[in-house]
Amino acid sequence: MEWKNQMKNYIETVNEELDKYFTLPKDKNQQVIEAMKYSVFAGGKRLRPILALASYQIFAKNFEEVLPYACGLEMIHTYSLIHDDLPAMDNDDYRRGKLTNHKVYGEGLAILAGDGLLNYSFEVMLGDAIKRDNPKPFLRSIHEIAKAAGIHGMIGGQTVDLQSEGQAIDADTLDYIHHNKTAALITAPLKIGAIIGNASEEDIKNMEFVGRQLGLAFQIKDDILDIVGDQEKLGKPIGSDEDNNKSTYPSIYGLEYSIQKVQELTDSINDVLGRYGEASNFLYELSQYLVNRES
Amino acid sequence: MEWKNQMKNYIETVNEELDKYFTLPKDKNQQVIEAMKYSVFAGGKRLRPILALASYQIFAKNFEEVLPYACGLEMIHTYSLIHDDLPAMDNDDYRRGKLTNHKVYGEGLAILAGDGLLNYSFEVMLGDAIKRDNPKPFLRSIHEIAKAAGIHGMIGGQTVDLQSEGQAIDADTLDYIHHNKTAALITAPLKIGAIIGNASEEDIKNMEFVGRQLGLAFQIKDDILDIVGDQEKLGKPIGSDEDNNKSTYPSIYGLEYSIQKVQELTDSINDVLGRYGEASNFLYELSQYLVNRES
Repeated sequence: MEWKNQMKNYIETVNEELDKYFTLPKDKNQQVIEAMKYSVFAGGKRLRPILALASYQIFAKNFEEVLPYACGLEMIHTYSLIHDDLPAMDNDDYRRGKLTNHKVYGEGLAILAGDGLLNYSFEVMLGDAIKRDNPKPFLRSIHEIAKAAGIHGMIGGQTVDLQSEGQAIDADTLDYIHHNKTAALITAPLKIGAIIGNASEEDIKNMEFVGRQLGLAFQIKDDILDIVGDQEKLGKPIGSDEDNNKSTYPSIYGLEYSIQKVQELTDSINDVLGRYGEASNFLYELSQYLVNRES
Repeated sequence: MEWKNQMKNYIETVNEELDKYFTLPKDKNQQVIEAMKYSVFAGGKRLRPILALASYQIFAKNFEEVLPYACGLEMIHTYSLIHDDLPAMDNDDYRRGKLTNHKVYGEGLAILAGDGLLNYSFEVMLGDAIKRDNPKPFLRSIHEIAKAAGIHGMIGGQTVDLQSEGQAIDADTLDYIHHNKTAALITAPLKIGAIIGNASEEDIKNMEFVGRQLGLAFQIKDDILDIVGDQEKLGKPIGSDEDNNKSTYPSIYGLEYSIQKVQELTDSINDVLGRYGEASNFLYELSQYLVNRES
């Protein structure tokens, strides 16, 4: 279980770094900062930052230089949850057992807190890149993150998801949602870890490939757990996708094929990671864990 | 009226450039792009991009290189209007005589369109900066824009404005709102025009000063027009600030002092611009126009 210790270290490091960015002098804007902090420190698993650190450490040692970008990714992920939970979107009152942002601070401030996190993510990353002697890999990484989070990535996926609410969709549309709403922001950390870790273009492409496969496997696993998961372990009722008439991978392709698909994706991830030997151990264990998880 | 021709040219150039960024291949995300375009091309005055071009042209000739950043500023301005108009914020049904974004596309898509514009602004600017041999001034400019738009700038101002709704506020708080909600995103274009135009640090500071004074004068003028303006010229009813119990510069400092303050700010702008001779003519005329406007 050495990788779980590594995981703990990564999470602690990320939390400390995030803490630094949110330790700000008291000013009149204090309430929006409080609302931002509420969601950033609401028990997120830090999956995206961890993927950035893990990818970086395949190619380089000291991960300090990737931290601002890892945290930027987490801020973008958090803003997307705040806006997704709003009444005009998914209308959720709880997330991870806690009241959602707008339930605590009101809708207006929740909108601003989301906007604030998206903007602050770029502010933090740009503020780091500007200090670098050779800013190019950092600039490229911020650009990659912007593309993954934007209308041709996450926001594109959210749009199609919003439009598809309560209606059956075809396989193409489901693929679009899965690839963009979820996988894009799982691919980005793996890619930028390699870019900042000074990996070759081929290695960067490999990490991007791993990201895409992992993102898709992660999402299909989510869909599967909603059918066959253990309510107690999940901490939420199963069958909600079916109740909401939500098209999922199993509802379109069948449960058996979905399970098989996760296995195929996992095999292709392991195949690529295998080329990096021991350096990729952590990422291998983490992806095993993510596709085999029971909650 | 030569400056008005120049103004027309600038507007045309900005519109053509914006058009380029929003000419995108049809995909499943099409609806969010349509919603973004609706607001970007809803008759905005393009003030922020024009200020960036005008500042740049004090120091350099060919303004092509500042265009992506000028357009990025306009996208951020537009997103802030979409989110500001939402029911949870100002709850406005019309802007510039047209239905607001959420009235046309629904609240969910309007939230995503705003998010999309903020993110796309960075995507466009970073996509340009990444191609530059020396990306540093461009990187610095994007960072300046992020700071101006964020929690220590525009979003900070919006937060305090939202909290102050319907209640009397003190002079300090009003200053904070004016400086951050409005002036920050008027200062940024003047500053980045100088940075990308390769101006000296002193010149960059001067343009920043002009921006702050102009932003404040512009906002106070707005407050004044709501009291003494001509309803027909304004195209909206006057007295709405008083009706909404909104604290404004005149309500706190009195009308006479407000008019005097605009004059003082204008004098200080002219004083600085005077140092740049003919090169600053356009900016001089534009600021005269903005502080003397009747609508």
